Amino acid sequence: MTINLEENERIDDLDCKGYRIIQNTKKFCFGMDAVLLSQFAKVGKGEQAVDLGTGTGVIPLLLEAKTGGSKFVGLEIQAEAVHMARRSVALNGLEDKVIIESGDIKEASKLLGGASFDVVTSNPPYMKENHGLKNPDMGKAIARHELLCTLDDVVREASKLLKPNGRLYMVHRPFRMADIVRALDRYKLKPRTIQFVHPSVKKEPSLILVEAVRGGSPMLKIQPPFIVFNEDGTYSRQYEIAYGHLQQ
Amino acid sequence: MTINLEENERIDDLDCKGYRIIQNTKKFCFGMDAVLLSQFAKVGKGEQAVDLGTGTGVIPLLLEAKTGGSKFVGLEIQAEAVHMARRSVALNGLEDKVIIESGDIKEASKLLGGASFDVVTSNPPYMKENHGLKNPDMGKAIARHELLCTLDDVVREASKLLKPNGRLYMVHRPFRMADIVRALDRYKLKPRTIQFVHPSVKKEPSLILVEAVRGGSPMLKIQPPFIVFNEDGTYSRQYEIAYGHLQQ
Repeated sequence: MTINLEENERIDDLDCKGYRIIQNTKKFCFGMDAVLLSQFAKVGKGEQAVDLGTGTGVIPLLLEAKTGGSKFVGLEIQAEAVHMARRSVALNGLEDKVIIESGDIKEASKLLGGASFDVVTSNPPYMKENHGLKNPDMGKAIARHELLCTLDDVVREASKLLKPNGRLYMVHRPFRMADIVRALDRYKLKPRTIQFVHPSVKKEPSLILVEAVRGGSPMLKIQPPFIVFNEDGTYSRQYEIAYGHLQQ
Repeated sequence: MTINLEENERIDDLDCKGYRIIQNTKKFCFGMDAVLLSQFAKVGKGEQAVDLGTGTGVIPLLLEAKTGGSKFVGLEIQAEAVHMARRSVALNGLEDKVIIESGDIKEASKLLGGASFDVVTSNPPYMKENHGLKNPDMGKAIARHELLCTLDDVVREASKLLKPNGRLYMVHRPFRMADIVRALDRYKLKPRTIQFVHPSVKKEPSLILVEAVRGGSPMLKIQPPFIVFNEDGTYSRQYEIAYGHLQQ
């Protein structure tokens, strides 16, 4: 099939079932956070999952490739990203299973229906609105700073979207961890699994992966650290597995 | 000087400035958690510190040895442990700087005075009252289960004991992390530094070390993991430093 590429767009290999993805080198490129989130998230056979703020659509595509879920929705507010993600879905012939919806995270449960998903994933903006330098490009700034939606919005909508016992999987920055616990508390989600991602074993974590459950009172488990680089500077085995370069 | 030892008591070396400590092999022995907490806690020159639930008194003794603090109080409810800790203080000739007080953590700020310490440390009971098997020995059970005081009690009293900008250093179990964040929130303490202690880099953490500040809004920092064993089964360098077998 023919897929039209816009200016600065290119097609990249996802190293997973031969899937490919359209990225815009100036505006929307997925990062390690999305890849690690798709590795951390568990979607059971026949389950339905929604990704809040899906950007290029990388998370629904990777989850479709890696899990037995039956439907993967990606919600995105930026029209250019929606256009890219939909073409990536078509490029892989996944229109029946992966649906990219245009819309605002803050309205997600109204748009998509309450208590209708088994799994919510999100790689939301990490930085508080006035924290750190904003990206001069508005598209990147929206993806990185809490300009259009906050952590509270993401967690509130995730809670509404989830069925009882449904799971939220989120990647964020470690310095927001206490904020994450508070937000989960506000919306009746309980943290069940947390993993920190460290560039190397001697460095502070750069990312936090969180699994939270709608209802119940699970015992919180902190996982072994996810280490990106071995001490000799090569990529770790866990990193290579997450990127599909090695089998688990 | 002559120190009388009771049944099952012995004198152990603390590997720190030649200090020694009395332990009871059947009842009160300090663990790795106390040693790592004393390494994690920072007491500045001339500062005053109090340890809530001090047991053998190991934390005040190690902090006196390792830091420039001017006064170290240890509060303990169990009479036998108070008796042991006081004799350990005398054994090291530290009666002027290390004071073991007999009393209940729940009354700590009434006993010792509000807003009167720069630093609070605590290695409190980890297990919820009805969680896990209780130790048949009541002394050990009190040290391990929330029978006489809860996490909430420790954090509330720590907050009252601390001067503005004072710090709480606590060691606990990772599965209680969200409870710790909530308890700190209730008593106006903000988490500033967290470190997880993993038996090895491939294992889940067995302990969490938390620094929290009275007031302000510090940015939370998660530290590199503390790893106990190298992959070849030898003790890690950080462990050897914490135990005083290697210089920092």
